[in-house]
Amino acid sequence: MSEKKKRIAIIASKADIPGAYPPLLLATTAAAMDYEVGIFFTFFGLNLLKKKKLKKIKITPAGETAMPMPIPQIVGMLPGMTGMATLMMKSWMKKANVATLQELMDIAVESGVELIACEMTKAVMKIKDKDLIENCTPGGAATFLEFASEAEITLYI
Amino acid sequence: MSEKKKRIAIIASKADIPGAYPPLLLATTAAAMDYEVGIFFTFFGLNLLKKKKLKKIKITPAGETAMPMPIPQIVGMLPGMTGMATLMMKSWMKKANVATLQELMDIAVESGVELIACEMTKAVMKIKDKDLIENCTPGGAATFLEFASEAEITLYI
Amino acid sequence: MSEKKKRIAIIASKADIPGAYPPLLLATTAAAMDYEVGIFFTFFGLNLLKKKKLKKIKITPAGETAMPMPIPQIVGMLPGMTGMATLMMKSWMKKANVATLQELMDIAVESGVELIACEMTKAVMKIKDKDLIENCTPGGAATFLEFASEAEITLYI
Repeated sequence: MSEKKKRIAIIASKADIPGAYPPLLLATTAAAMDYEVGIFFTFFGLNLLKKKKLKKIKITPAGETAMPMPIPQIVGMLPGMTGMATLMMKSWMKKANVATLQELMDIAVESGVELIACEMTKAVMKIKDKDLIENCTPGGAATFLEFASEAEITLYI
Repeated sequence: MSEKKKRIAIIASKADIPGAYPPLLLATTAAAMDYEVGIFFTFFGLNLLKKKKLKKIKITPAGETAMPMPIPQIVGMLPGMTGMATLMMKSWMKKANVATLQELMDIAVESGVELIACEMTKAVMKIKDKDLIENCTPGGAATFLEFASEAEITLYI
Repeated sequence: MSEKKKRIAIIASKADIPGAYPPLLLATTAAAMDYEVGIFFTFFGLNLLKKKKLKKIKITPAGETAMPMPIPQIVGMLPGMTGMATLMMKSWMKKANVATLQELMDIAVESGVELIACEMTKAVMKIKDKDLIENCTPGGAATFLEFASEAEITLYI
C-alpha cells in the first residue's frame, strides 16, 4: 500500500549566500522528510551547479539594508567589503553549526534530489556540461513546469 | 458542514521595504478572505519579527534599476540616499493610503496569522526570544514544509 | 469530456532583467503547454506593463556576486557599468537566440495570459491606466489570491 510521496519543486535563480542556502536547506530537509525533491537551477543559480564553485559563493552587503551589523551603503561598495561580509557571515554560520553549501549539496545528491540545469542559461552563459557537477541533468522551463505541476510546494528563490 | 479552509504558506526572507510589504499585504488580505495563513520568517526576514523594528525598515536604491524616479547607481550608493529613497517611498505610500508595516503586522497578529521565527536564523544571527515580538513561535524548515504541504498557495518572498 | 486545465499563478515584483525574464519565460512556456496562466504585476514589476518600457529594462551588476565575468563591486557602481552589463547580457542572450522581453510579452498577450496590474502599486507610483499596455486588467491582492488558490503552481518572482 504505497502512498504517493509529497513533492516540492524549487527554482534556484540566485548565486549569493542568501540565494544559495534556502534552496539547499529546504531541499535537504524535505528529502529527510521523504519528499520527492527537484531543484531547477537557472539564471545566476546555475552557478551553484558548477564544479568547485560552492566554496566561492559570497554575500555582498550592497543593497542589503538588514545585515545584522549595519554597514553604510558606500562602505558596502568597497571591493574588500564583500569579502569581509562573506567571512563574517560564514563565521556566524559555523558557530551556529550550519552545514556548508558543499555539505548540503552532497546530502542533496545522496538523497536523490533531482538537480536540473537550465539549458537556456547554459547557452546564454556559455557553460559546458563538463563545467557542471555530474549529478545534474539538463532541462528547460517545460521540464520544471511538468515536475512542479504535481508538487504540493512550489517556490521561486 | 464545515469546509476545509484554504491555506497560504509564505516565506519572508528579506527585510527591506520591497521585501517586507508583500508577505504582510498578502497575509492580511488572505486572512480577511478567511484563509489559514502562515509566514516563516527566515534569513534577513527574521528582522521583521524584532521588537520596534518595523519603523526602521528601509528601501535602498542600490541595485534597483526600476525606481519610479531613476537614480544613477553611484548616487544611490551615497549613505544619505537610502534615507532619502525610504522617505520618498514612505511618502508615496502614505498618500496612497497604504497601511504601515506595523499596522499590517498588528492586523496579522489579530487575524491569527501564524508567525514562525526560524530557529537556525536565530542561532546564526544571535537573536534571542526576548528580541522578538511575543506573538511568534519558533520553528524550522520542517515546520514550514509540513504547514506548506497542505497549502493551496506557497510563496518564497 | 473536457479536463480542467492546469494553472500557474505568478507574481512579478521586479523590473530588472533577472526579474523580468523568468515570469515571461515561464508564462509563455506554460501557455504553450496549454496551462491557464496569470501574472500579477506588483511593486517594481508593474513597470513591465508600461508602454514602450520593455526595451529599457536593465541589469545592474551592483549586488550581483555571480555575474559570469566578475566585476568588482565599486566598479559595478559606476553609472556606465549598468549600461555595459545590460549590453553584455543582451548580447549573450541574442547569441543564444533568446527572445526579447517585448517578444515574450507579445506571445503572452496572444496566448491569452492574464496580465493583472496591481491597483495599489498604480496608486503608490501614480501610474495611470493610459501608461499601461491595453491588454492588462486592474486587480488587487485578493484577485491574485483567488486565481492562485486554484493553481497547481504558484511563484513569487
